[in-house]
Amino acid sequence: MPANVLYGQAGGVTAVINASAHGVIQGVRHHRDHFGRIYAAREGIIGALREDLVDLEREDAASLDALRHTPGGAFGACRYDLGPLESHKHQYERLMEVFAAHDIGYFFYNGGGGSMVTAEKVHVAAQQMGYPLTVMGIPKTIDNDLAGTDTSPGFGSAAKYVATSVREAALDVASMAESSTKVFIMEVMGRHAGWLAAAGGLAQGRPDDAPQIVLFAERAFHRRAFMDRVREIVERVGYCVVVASEGLRDADGQFLSVAESSHVEDWIQLGGVAPNLAEMVRRDLDLKVHWALPDYLQRAAAHIGSATDVEQAAAVGERAVELAVAGENGRMPVIRRESDEPYEWSVDSVDLARIADVETTVPEAFIREDGYHITEAARRYLAPLIRGEARPPFINGLPDYARLGMFPVERRLPPYELDEQVAPQKGGKPA
Amino acid sequence: MPANVLYGQAGGVTAVINASAHGVIQGVRHHRDHFGRIYAAREGIIGALREDLVDLEREDAASLDALRHTPGGAFGACRYDLGPLESHKHQYERLMEVFAAHDIGYFFYNGGGGSMVTAEKVHVAAQQMGYPLTVMGIPKTIDNDLAGTDTSPGFGSAAKYVATSVREAALDVASMAESSTKVFIMEVMGRHAGWLAAAGGLAQGRPDDAPQIVLFAERAFHRRAFMDRVREIVERVGYCVVVASEGLRDADGQFLSVAESSHVEDWIQLGGVAPNLAEMVRRDLDLKVHWALPDYLQRAAAHIGSATDVEQAAAVGERAVELAVAGENGRMPVIRRESDEPYEWSVDSVDLARIADVETTVPEAFIREDGYHITEAARRYLAPLIRGEARPPFINGLPDYARLGMFPVERRLPPYELDEQVAPQKGGKPA
Repeated sequence: MPANVLYGQAGGVTAVINASAHGVIQGVRHHRDHFGRIYAAREGIIGALREDLVDLEREDAASLDALRHTPGGAFGACRYDLGPLESHKHQYERLMEVFAAHDIGYFFYNGGGGSMVTAEKVHVAAQQMGYPLTVMGIPKTIDNDLAGTDTSPGFGSAAKYVATSVREAALDVASMAESSTKVFIMEVMGRHAGWLAAAGGLAQGRPDDAPQIVLFAERAFHRRAFMDRVREIVERVGYCVVVASEGLRDADGQFLSVAESSHVEDWIQLGGVAPNLAEMVRRDLDLKVHWALPDYLQRAAAHIGSATDVEQAAAVGERAVELAVAGENGRMPVIRRESDEPYEWSVDSVDLARIADVETTVPEAFIREDGYHITEAARRYLAPLIRGEARPPFINGLPDYARLGMFPVERRLPPYELDEQVAPQKGGKPA
Repeated sequence: MPANVLYGQAGGVTAVINASAHGVIQGVRHHRDHFGRIYAAREGIIGALREDLVDLEREDAASLDALRHTPGGAFGACRYDLGPLESHKHQYERLMEVFAAHDIGYFFYNGGGGSMVTAEKVHVAAQQMGYPLTVMGIPKTIDNDLAGTDTSPGFGSAAKYVATSVREAALDVASMAESSTKVFIMEVMGRHAGWLAAAGGLAQGRPDDAPQIVLFAERAFHRRAFMDRVREIVERVGYCVVVASEGLRDADGQFLSVAESSHVEDWIQLGGVAPNLAEMVRRDLDLKVHWALPDYLQRAAAHIGSATDVEQAAAVGERAVELAVAGENGRMPVIRRESDEPYEWSVDSVDLARIADVETTVPEAFIREDGYHITEAARRYLAPLIRGEARPPFINGLPDYARLGMFPVERRLPPYELDEQVAPQKGGKPA
């Protein structure tokens, strides 16, 4: 009897990670003879450790198909790292016990750079421990910082949300600038890479259109130069729209979100570049400012999903299955760009070991020389990624997202306590 | 020769105020024999005072039609009040001079409660000064606080954005709560009325779905009771999503945005209920919290516009013209609800004097007895307003919004200096 499949999600979720899940499910269906049942681990590797699995075979087809347009991680996505095999062998022994108890022969792990470290660890551990396991990584991250791939599924949809939102809010600001707000600052995700800020730059159709300024995590923030620029733009255009990376830092490498708000306890944890920049603009230029911080809205906005992104997310999920069928192991499908215009892409794959925990940032060639906007090269790269409108069905004016039955797989092992040092808090005060 | 028409926009703009402009333009086209040319005042009453007019007859039809799906105020919208006629007669004399110089016989003013005060003042002044002028108000506000109408154009689209965004972000939070964020707070507009917070409540499909808590501007915030509720929900459901009105106040009537952040100069101006609530949750419950503050994004999101809202916005614009043709004066078209389900509505009208500067809040019957959610009556009222998806055309992955030529009407009068006390700042330091 063919071995069963276990699928898991990890790390910050996206608008399209469930489309990858759907791709895996479709792939398994196309090779019914090759696989047994398909299960999902709840909360990724945590569910695998806890033997907390759900049986996807029992879900109805319509619910599973709805995954293709449903944001978030339908099976729960953890932030949880496995320890090194040498010092944390018990974790891997437990995993192999769970896999063995449920005849798991295939483990598909859908996540970002950190999660690929986990996938690679499981891959290596299974080999060393002699457990027959095929491990495949499936890429996702809105940060677009995964190595080895032209883009990361999840980024295109977040980028489309950011560019659309900036364009829309700018129309609002432009119409009222004469007697109200003159500067608008939108903070976007990207702690170490300014990819989403760069995407905001796409909203600028003509010179002087908003956003007039893009602040990259890759460039040091110089308050005075920034203020001079804002003042000049407000005087000339009437208003100024700024898109800022949450990871913006000053010349000393200090995060902007810390610099001005260290008096507000813990604020750094939650972002705050936009309110800080706003406060500086008010102090230095005495202009009326508004700011927005969409936070999770930008990575969950399937209602304005990029069709290209959804298609790629599903494609890497399907390809992971095909690679497994072809007998490959320890690999991750990636997007390869064939041409910018017309946009053509294919799916390739790389070794997990090669991409795990490597981050890519916005290259020099994509940042305008003065550091305050994107280049034409950046536009050529970014534009195709947000193309096409992937829309969920709406019922009564609201998007209708998947509701799975989440049928538990019967446990066959004793309960397992997660290691304390990395145990997630269950609500209330943590230990 | 028939008199010319002047259209103006005022107050906080919306995703559909331009659809009302389009309705006015369509109405005038349908009665070509009754009207001369149609002009728009730039920045509303400011443009009327400054003789800063644009000629809509010179725009091409496609650009004007694109107004129907373009957010923001295409002609500029001011926050500018006229003084009382007794003490500021010069303002009204100037207005009548401008109107006379351009044969303006019809003034359509598109705005909220405050702007209707302006419209009514112009109406009364024209009558007292013997200038033959038909004045019509056209309602708009995302706050839904206008009197005399079942709903205000602009609210439905903002409501759809808020409910959609909450539903989406909640899927993100739900999927990661086990090992990451457990509480998510989204701040929505509404300084004096909790209508948009109430709209967020629509995202809850089943009991225990997000948002689990709605905080209304109409209810005093009690920290301890709120924290008890958040803790209970996190323990039972695993996470808690809160939608909070920016106008939330404590039992002493103090704005939450002030209470915790008075040490950050001017912060109150920019909102900050969400970060403050987040800080309190962290301190009191020691839970990981995220928050979002979409600010202008929520009132400019034409990409997720409500079809019902767009239709009503256009209808009140067209009706204003028809009322003028019928010889009425000093009135504002309003939406009348005929039935909830199926949703049926008609356009009625009220005297400007009756609705100017009157605000409506969320009624008792719409707020659950415990104060933390909406009732079934609220759902019956709100649900039809967000129904239908009004989508702009997309080009290269981004919404394609109207770009007007904004052809200036030749000036015939000497320049006019706006009164200093209410003069808008032009950038840089104000006087």
